[in-house]
Amino acid sequence: MRSVYVAGVGMTRFGVLKESLVSLAETAAIEAVRDSGLLGVRIDRLVVGAQSPEEFAGVGHLSTLLADRMGVVPAGATRVETGPSSGSSAFETAFVLIASGMAETALVIGVEKMSAVDRGAASRIIAKMMSNENETRYGGTPAAMAALVARRYMHDYGLTRDDLSLVPVKAHRNGAKNPLAHFQSEITVEKVNQSKIVADPLTLYDCCPTSDGAAALLLASSPAVKKATASDRAVRVLGVGHATDYHAVQHRLSLTSMNATVQAARAAFSMAGVTCKDLDVCELHDAFSILELIDMEDVGIAPRGAAISMVRDGETGVGGRIPVNPTGGLKARGHPTGATGVAQIHDIAVQLRGEAPSGLQVKSARLGLTQNIGGFGNNMVVTILGGA
Amino acid sequence: MRSVYVAGVGMTRFGVLKESLVSLAETAAIEAVRDSGLLGVRIDRLVVGAQSPEEFAGVGHLSTLLADRMGVVPAGATRVETGPSSGSSAFETAFVLIASGMAETALVIGVEKMSAVDRGAASRIIAKMMSNENETRYGGTPAAMAALVARRYMHDYGLTRDDLSLVPVKAHRNGAKNPLAHFQSEITVEKVNQSKIVADPLTLYDCCPTSDGAAALLLASSPAVKKATASDRAVRVLGVGHATDYHAVQHRLSLTSMNATVQAARAAFSMAGVTCKDLDVCELHDAFSILELIDMEDVGIAPRGAAISMVRDGETGVGGRIPVNPTGGLKARGHPTGATGVAQIHDIAVQLRGEAPSGLQVKSARLGLTQNIGGFGNNMVVTILGGA
Repeated sequence: MRSVYVAGVGMTRFGVLKESLVSLAETAAIEAVRDSGLLGVRIDRLVVGAQSPEEFAGVGHLSTLLADRMGVVPAGATRVETGPSSGSSAFETAFVLIASGMAETALVIGVEKMSAVDRGAASRIIAKMMSNENETRYGGTPAAMAALVARRYMHDYGLTRDDLSLVPVKAHRNGAKNPLAHFQSEITVEKVNQSKIVADPLTLYDCCPTSDGAAALLLASSPAVKKATASDRAVRVLGVGHATDYHAVQHRLSLTSMNATVQAARAAFSMAGVTCKDLDVCELHDAFSILELIDMEDVGIAPRGAAISMVRDGETGVGGRIPVNPTGGLKARGHPTGATGVAQIHDIAVQLRGEAPSGLQVKSARLGLTQNIGGFGNNMVVTILGGA
Repeated sequence: MRSVYVAGVGMTRFGVLKESLVSLAETAAIEAVRDSGLLGVRIDRLVVGAQSPEEFAGVGHLSTLLADRMGVVPAGATRVETGPSSGSSAFETAFVLIASGMAETALVIGVEKMSAVDRGAASRIIAKMMSNENETRYGGTPAAMAALVARRYMHDYGLTRDDLSLVPVKAHRNGAKNPLAHFQSEITVEKVNQSKIVADPLTLYDCCPTSDGAAALLLASSPAVKKATASDRAVRVLGVGHATDYHAVQHRLSLTSMNATVQAARAAFSMAGVTCKDLDVCELHDAFSILELIDMEDVGIAPRGAAISMVRDGETGVGGRIPVNPTGGLKARGHPTGATGVAQIHDIAVQLRGEAPSGLQVKSARLGLTQNIGGFGNNMVVTILGGA
């Protein structure tokens, strides 16, 4: 398999933004191309990750539309969708296009414009990713499923409301220093505890926002990346894993472990030839606070039931033993669904290049991991990236 | 790059069907797995091609949903969308997953359920693939664009209404012998000429129907295909090309040639190490009759302006020099958009195996090509397949 590099990265601010879907995608993509130092090099492929641009923004056929706007015609262009992990899956598709030898360069754009429809409509669009037979038609929502998981984790491992609140508090602490984050203000345990209940025991501050935003990566083969003006800034893709779980939560073996993460992480570590002990920094999918704890255990950086003590002890803070979501995670950076997976890789690449925003740089970061969730816990992609 | 084989194929009938989106996908996929003789071999990946299952059928997150239904969990599952060429792009994604070494086997499912919404709604969903800025907001539709192309071709090359009618007449002649075709009855030049005008000069019989249906392929690496009970029936993927053109028709260099087909075909022929002269059979995208003529010229099997004389002389019939759409094409086989590209590969594989329906088998077929169009002429995938 040929080596693949992240040669350039770009990202818009995440939030409720006035720019259109296409404008956001363009901004991030132009920045990724410029950042790569590969200006003038032919872009062979475009891969776009977006969950539902037709429904959220009324825009169809996004692959060709963006190929045209980005000036990469006649590059083959593809849109990839796996629910909220669409951006990660787009990255994987671009990765195999280069790894196989079908392309030398591939531009990946993850984007979503969620605020153009009202909140009720957005919820109905997102609900289509759930199992209708088993969940949606009984009123099941992603937040309701996350609440079930949180209750079970509390029962099994003694997690308290105050413990759980430490997760969004850390997210906001990091987001406050990230100029691209949706939320850039700190919060307290009390504020999380006292915010309104979304699905008991989860409150508003346990849940990520719906956001607009885009992120982009320029991937390149080994011969192509050598043409960059600063090829030593390129980050190598060491491992990619992708796995599914049963669609409906009730059909799974466990509420407090997500097997698709376990399987995807195992595949990515095996491919990279490293273990979770070697990691310096992680970006995990924390659309709900409880998920960050479960992700940590499923990826292997925390033993079962021990994630919360690591959060309590500050081990996952920026200066801690294994920083998790140093740029704010989905909770504070925001969650424009199709963009999230690409933003996670953007953020890890920036860390490995030593270019994180002030106060968020992890010291001597050489190996990073991203983990993203599609559906409610059933379509996961894990990537492992290494310094150049 | 590793070799990739089409180890098994499956397909439902196309038409206005009572089965659900998921049921259609299941039926085709189970047949492809059974057909491969690889029963019991682990399926590493699932790639689903579908244009807009959320809008046509109200079903989201199709990749995980089908991974669960097909019993392939924890296989990584991805949905791919490039408008009406979604099935071909899904095939390409599965191809590079195996070619790169990321997977040994991959199940490809192309599916669309278009009849669950009324015709007006279906038209509005399809219209999202057009350029809103340049076409849709002025009332431009795919049929209107095809009419422009037909007018120009008539002007440049002397095509007559009677000539053009020969294309759907041939499509229906073949479809009448294909038990899986949407339309299974013959038509005449007079019937085409006298059917109602959709966009002058195109009549109803120049236009493909909107259909329901699914097709599936089980792709396998060289080591995996050897485990099949009848591995000599496997068909090798020799070439894959994928290219875009400008989104809006008015921005292109020509009305009577589609550059994305030219580019995709060039890439596929180069990869396969063959030329258009070596082809024995083709499946081309004829959503509108005029497109078959243009596709023939863009792929290279006809000189510019000469496609119609080949149709007139019967050279593209089943017994002709280079049979085109022997199973009816989009016009008669039908066009469930996400399924079409997969069905084209299904049909070529069946031809190369010598297993085409009675009266449709091309003699000594050893090399076949598929060409599919996404958007209106702007996202093309070409594949070249060879006998085992």
